[in-house]
Amino acid sequence: MTTPTQPPSSKPAQVTIKMMSAAHPNFDQELDQLLAWEAVSDASVAAVVSEVLAAVRIEGDQALLEYTRRFDGWNPEHAEQLVVSREDLVSALEQLPFDQRSALEAAASRIRTYHEHQRQESWQYREENDTVLGQKVTPMDRVGLYVPGGKASYPSSVLMNAIPAKVAGVEQITMVVPTPRGEVNDLVLAAAAIAGVDNVIKVGGAQAIAALAYGTETVPKVDKIVGPGNIYVATAKRAVFGEVAIDMIAGPSEILVVCDGKTNPDWIAMDLFSQAEHDEQAQAILISYSPGFVDQVKDSIERLLPTLERSDITQKAIEGRSALIEVSDLSQAIEMVNRIAPEHLELSIDDPEAVLPQIRHAGAIFMGRHTSEALGDYCAGPNHVLPTSGTARFSSPLGVYDFQKRSSIIMCSPKGASELGKVASVLARGESLEAHARSAEYRILKED
Amino acid sequence: MTTPTQPPSSKPAQVTIKMMSAAHPNFDQELDQLLAWEAVSDASVAAVVSEVLAAVRIEGDQALLEYTRRFDGWNPEHAEQLVVSREDLVSALEQLPFDQRSALEAAASRIRTYHEHQRQESWQYREENDTVLGQKVTPMDRVGLYVPGGKASYPSSVLMNAIPAKVAGVEQITMVVPTPRGEVNDLVLAAAAIAGVDNVIKVGGAQAIAALAYGTETVPKVDKIVGPGNIYVATAKRAVFGEVAIDMIAGPSEILVVCDGKTNPDWIAMDLFSQAEHDEQAQAILISYSPGFVDQVKDSIERLLPTLERSDITQKAIEGRSALIEVSDLSQAIEMVNRIAPEHLELSIDDPEAVLPQIRHAGAIFMGRHTSEALGDYCAGPNHVLPTSGTARFSSPLGVYDFQKRSSIIMCSPKGASELGKVASVLARGESLEAHARSAEYRILKED
Repeated sequence: MTTPTQPPSSKPAQVTIKMMSAAHPNFDQELDQLLAWEAVSDASVAAVVSEVLAAVRIEGDQALLEYTRRFDGWNPEHAEQLVVSREDLVSALEQLPFDQRSALEAAASRIRTYHEHQRQESWQYREENDTVLGQKVTPMDRVGLYVPGGKASYPSSVLMNAIPAKVAGVEQITMVVPTPRGEVNDLVLAAAAIAGVDNVIKVGGAQAIAALAYGTETVPKVDKIVGPGNIYVATAKRAVFGEVAIDMIAGPSEILVVCDGKTNPDWIAMDLFSQAEHDEQAQAILISYSPGFVDQVKDSIERLLPTLERSDITQKAIEGRSALIEVSDLSQAIEMVNRIAPEHLELSIDDPEAVLPQIRHAGAIFMGRHTSEALGDYCAGPNHVLPTSGTARFSSPLGVYDFQKRSSIIMCSPKGASELGKVASVLARGESLEAHARSAEYRILKED
Repeated sequence: MTTPTQPPSSKPAQVTIKMMSAAHPNFDQELDQLLAWEAVSDASVAAVVSEVLAAVRIEGDQALLEYTRRFDGWNPEHAEQLVVSREDLVSALEQLPFDQRSALEAAASRIRTYHEHQRQESWQYREENDTVLGQKVTPMDRVGLYVPGGKASYPSSVLMNAIPAKVAGVEQITMVVPTPRGEVNDLVLAAAAIAGVDNVIKVGGAQAIAALAYGTETVPKVDKIVGPGNIYVATAKRAVFGEVAIDMIAGPSEILVVCDGKTNPDWIAMDLFSQAEHDEQAQAILISYSPGFVDQVKDSIERLLPTLERSDITQKAIEGRSALIEVSDLSQAIEMVNRIAPEHLELSIDDPEAVLPQIRHAGAIFMGRHTSEALGDYCAGPNHVLPTSGTARFSSPLGVYDFQKRSSIIMCSPKGASELGKVASVLARGESLEAHARSAEYRILKED
């Protein structure tokens, strides 16, 4: 066990976190209830979004200006006022304190290195009769990045979204960020400068999504929109899906820690808090098969929670959708991991590598007692945009592959086309698609 | 030039296909109009779908039975009657005529070989201080495949959707297919047997999508739903997106042929027909920089169109959203390809490999005069599920990668965690996320 660090002195809080046991007869049902989460879809939001999308599509910049005045509390008169110049970005970077700038640059460099491993390459193979088959991989031309404004504005999120696109080879990244009451977040602009963002436009909300999806005089139309946002942004992204690509619409953040009982319980409590402090809906779950460990962590939670800057939000999340779960052994813990398919999984155990092959569903896997999730959020290298709410069953961390796409390559030799033509002809006629059949039959060589 | 084949004798049709020239002053605008296509979203359809989804979610099999009786015109009394047994699949395969069975098996084998090149592997790397970073690739557990019923029911589509999932390692594929008036398509069942589909359920429409997304007593809940369907199916897929993954919602099929004028114009006409015969909304475009070639193709179209089994649909498509376009040279043709981002691109030219590097956006590229698109639809190997309506700007052919997902791997050594902890701490405090900072700081070694 690692040495406990000295806890800050403060009166322990009374925290009513759920204590669950897999041995309890109603456990399965309780777990289902704990995990249940559904995106609110709100008819009044949908109506506003649909009006905003239509207005921006038709009126372009004029609509952007109007909605910005109405929703963001400042008064741009001309579309040029929405544009942040390259000089502003560079100056934001230059004005950063030294430690923040170095930390951002160190994080960016590690994120870039990691993501370079994800770049996919074109491939092809040649068959005996000289027919060539393959796939050509190409970056998207233009990508839009939504960055929330105000206090939820995170420079790390700019790095995590923009760098994979740049590694993919995307030529133009347009970032949109609302500036409530004209307030610009310099850390965010600095991160944009480091990540190589090409344009920054001071718009937000559904109007920003519309501008990226349809294009306006000032905002170039993009091929894909990524980045988190509030319910208006999420609803707008869902509405333009198909016109452009979008990333997954994220639910509240979650962490699942599996611990063998040999990690300092304070560490585990703080790891749970690092999710819980995000928002009241966040979910932090500990699973342990070491008898009594969940109680130790509960003590740490009660002692440490009052010492946090964001103790109110954290307490609401801990008392809301969070839980400490006791299970009988490691294999039951693993079964539960795959059932939950968590966004973040911490394996705070002796030999995490032995367990890895059995983990089927998780956004990111933090292995060993020293790998706190916070390291992954900022600077380890992997992306912090991860599938939430069990969607790790079918989706992946944001990556370079999200900004590349593929084209099939088929180049038949005359001999190859002749052989394939016979097969295609039978199948096409079986589907009553005669023109398909005849088009293939034209390529059947007489001597064949 | 290849020798023209003897045209079947029939009276030439009067076909009013659009003849366009890039030199025309209004060309850009005309092209935009030609390409404009928007999915109909119908409020009455959405209302029906929303009712069906809710009913199946709550009542399960009972709702499936009721909707099947109401919409499909047959009367299953028990849910077991919806299940096609493994024996039925095998018997459908065994009853196929020899040539159809061999063609299906040959196609399946080529599709499998091609898709095996797409399988992604896990990777990791170790840093100097023994920190390990990587990505683990895992197949999805369960996939649902929608197959339309009746005359739009295509065995090739079963192969193209199911084989990549199986190559990815998906354990359970559930196929749903409506059987209007109880009619089962034996070719489709035979294709399911060959492709290794695990369950087949005789339901269709929004109720089938609901069953796959939520699960019922008889239909297992899946992680992803793929396959084409009508507007009810597409609307239902869009509604369950997020709960499960879905493939792209396809628009009408399209082909863009670029020809240097040296291919037999009959071949080109038939290649255009092979898209046009799919449906009246289909789009077939020829671009040529060989003076007069578009007129030769027009003659072939008029001569060959009346000889087609599906001449009515084909003519409507050719007269609808199709066009023959004359451009000044190859480079103008390529520029237009990238602007259109076609689903199918035929490069019917002397040296297609020289042009390939300049093609940025296309679903599948058919290279050379002998490579007709029909070969790719059935048996060349690459997938025929391709991005339509310009979405090749941001999406890819269906592939093995659509059934795999990734988990980030982060395993910090104590030394690595200590170094990263310092960076994370600065960034977390910059974002006012103190618990993140403290969680990282716990891992900073004293001696560091």
